[in-house]
Amino acid sequence: MLPFLRSDLAQLAAYKPHPGGVGAEAPATVDRLDTNESPYDLPAELKQKLAWHYQHSLESNRYPDGSHAALKEAIATYANESAHTDWVQPEHISIGNGSDELIRALLIATCLGGEGSILVANPTFSMYAITANTLGIPVVAVGRDEATFAIDCTAAQAAIADTDAQPIRVVFVVHPNSPTANALTEAEIDWLRQIPDHILVVIDEAYFEFSQTSLLPELPQHPNWVILRTFSKAFRLASHRVGYGLAHPGVAAALEKVRLPYNLPAMTQTAARLTLQHRAELLPIIDTIRQEREKLGDRLRSFPALQVWPSDANFFFMRLDPTVLSADLDPDKALDHLFNRLKQEGTLIRKTSGGLRITVGTPEENQRTGDRAQALLRKLGSAAQKG
Amino acid sequence: MLPFLRSDLAQLAAYKPHPGGVGAEAPATVDRLDTNESPYDLPAELKQKLAWHYQHSLESNRYPDGSHAALKEAIATYANESAHTDWVQPEHISIGNGSDELIRALLIATCLGGEGSILVANPTFSMYAITANTLGIPVVAVGRDEATFAIDCTAAQAAIADTDAQPIRVVFVVHPNSPTANALTEAEIDWLRQIPDHILVVIDEAYFEFSQTSLLPELPQHPNWVILRTFSKAFRLASHRVGYGLAHPGVAAALEKVRLPYNLPAMTQTAARLTLQHRAELLPIIDTIRQEREKLGDRLRSFPALQVWPSDANFFFMRLDPTVLSADLDPDKALDHLFNRLKQEGTLIRKTSGGLRITVGTPEENQRTGDRAQALLRKLGSAAQKG
Repeated sequence: MLPFLRSDLAQLAAYKPHPGGVGAEAPATVDRLDTNESPYDLPAELKQKLAWHYQHSLESNRYPDGSHAALKEAIATYANESAHTDWVQPEHISIGNGSDELIRALLIATCLGGEGSILVANPTFSMYAITANTLGIPVVAVGRDEATFAIDCTAAQAAIADTDAQPIRVVFVVHPNSPTANALTEAEIDWLRQIPDHILVVIDEAYFEFSQTSLLPELPQHPNWVILRTFSKAFRLASHRVGYGLAHPGVAAALEKVRLPYNLPAMTQTAARLTLQHRAELLPIIDTIRQEREKLGDRLRSFPALQVWPSDANFFFMRLDPTVLSADLDPDKALDHLFNRLKQEGTLIRKTSGGLRITVGTPEENQRTGDRAQALLRKLGSAAQKG
Repeated sequence: MLPFLRSDLAQLAAYKPHPGGVGAEAPATVDRLDTNESPYDLPAELKQKLAWHYQHSLESNRYPDGSHAALKEAIATYANESAHTDWVQPEHISIGNGSDELIRALLIATCLGGEGSILVANPTFSMYAITANTLGIPVVAVGRDEATFAIDCTAAQAAIADTDAQPIRVVFVVHPNSPTANALTEAEIDWLRQIPDHILVVIDEAYFEFSQTSLLPELPQHPNWVILRTFSKAFRLASHRVGYGLAHPGVAAALEKVRLPYNLPAMTQTAARLTLQHRAELLPIIDTIRQEREKLGDRLRSFPALQVWPSDANFFFMRLDPTVLSADLDPDKALDHLFNRLKQEGTLIRKTSGGLRITVGTPEENQRTGDRAQALLRKLGSAAQKG
């Protein structure tokens, strides 16, 4: 009907951000544990500083700094500090309107025009494949170990070696992975190290502040590696949309070529710089979240119907244990039931990859999560017995 | 050296946003007349409202609304009001992180994968061709009438009819055009009307508030038209980066598919909504700017060495008149000289397309612009006589 649109675009659905609210019968309090945000807003004095800046020194009518010079300097300092390195410079950095924009820039810089496909290991962050699809770039998906969610490196290696298919030009991994919360193992990292240098390796460290492990120190030995990070998680700036890529200067320069000139609003740049300046106040709460993670994990693991995987991030992945469920209870329907009932009671989580992903929240939120899950799983048990 | 990068990307230079500051010997006041911004920031009470909102009700740690629902409603109302229509609904709208992002989305939705090329009429807004280049999309350029800058529709029509070349799938026009400041004529609009409906026609109305003409009322008759607009000019929000597209629901849906899910920061959405709410206070200044445009135009036209074109926008395009310059004065060097001297004295303008583009500023800025240009042109004249 609209013949100027790309022929392959009709098959794609628009990405639906946020599963949305909780419907007409919304409970008074909603615990938003579905998008792996920090449960904490910025401290009041930082909000006030940023508000003051907006009111008195930011010029709304002027285009933002398109070079991101000051923010790149600040990110370089933090990147070095975060990984005990000293070589990161602005020339290694490109900044995006969220990591999403950097994922798109990486895809544009490498695979467009039939020059290659990408490799992902499912389940993983969905935006790699979604963004590749919008650009008409083929996606090769391999699996993960069902017990540990380690990447099936044998299958991945076979896909790379397959000379009949369109060559794989980019491999995307997440460290730790979403939705399964596992950091890369030494064996997986060994596999990344030997990927030939005509293939770009993107290591998404969106959650590295929670795992406290980073591959940044190895970047100088691998000009085909890019590390992605974000201000949306540990730095509490999801509303602002800031992600950054760390890479060989040649790769960073390609990302700079591809990005739109004024991609970062002025207020965004200021907010990111200010949170970096105040990181000594902001980051210690990571320890609290990690402690809460252990408590919530212990509680969830105490429910026999749940299979809960270890977490190196600020969220858990879990599935219903089919060996514990009654044989005549459909596991998919039981999962739907649990997800929907939690939503009705005011706990938003994510249903994905045959399981549930739940963000670690405040102590109060985690308490409610545990209580609600406990009551629902008990009822599910009794429904299963009745059924 | 980096074999995973696209082979055609090496030839592209990164877009340099803003020609940058004025160097070490910067004058105390800089008149920024190089990017066609509004010279006026938001009124103090609006800045205060937005600052209050940021401090007290925006949650920095939460992702923004990815549906843009409230902002789309507000834009629909304004779009109808701006063109005396009543049919614009949210389903006709897609919102971008600046119009730049919509230009990219349009290109991705239409021309990727060798499905087509784009047509532009130079001189025009450079981002169409730059963005197409970063996506590997071919650009066909036709010219304009040297006296009026009307599009060479004959050449454009021939390019569309050329069956040997990659078919043209998108035509980009600006109404009024940048850098030449002319609105589309009735003849040009007639040409747009008969473009076959397998070709998308993008009409960029970034400056329509200054021309007070819009093709929006005709959109329902042309499902292959898209109108782009921005908050960066009349609404004084260049720092926030908001542009919107108005189109057939099928085209808008394609843009929504292609865009990144959280492309608009929360503060951006609030600022755009608030300026729309307060448009009765914000937009009357357009009349002041239009009056200032006439005064500045009269002054510039009074200098014999300048050829100044009429303006339907908030800027002027001008060239040095070679018939007035001394024969032994190189016109390009004279233009460089004028541009550089203005910069040294604190007036930033844009050198482009063999001429100068200058934004209409505040009355004080326009006065200084006139005074500085007058003095420099006088010296240029005497230099020419001496040379």
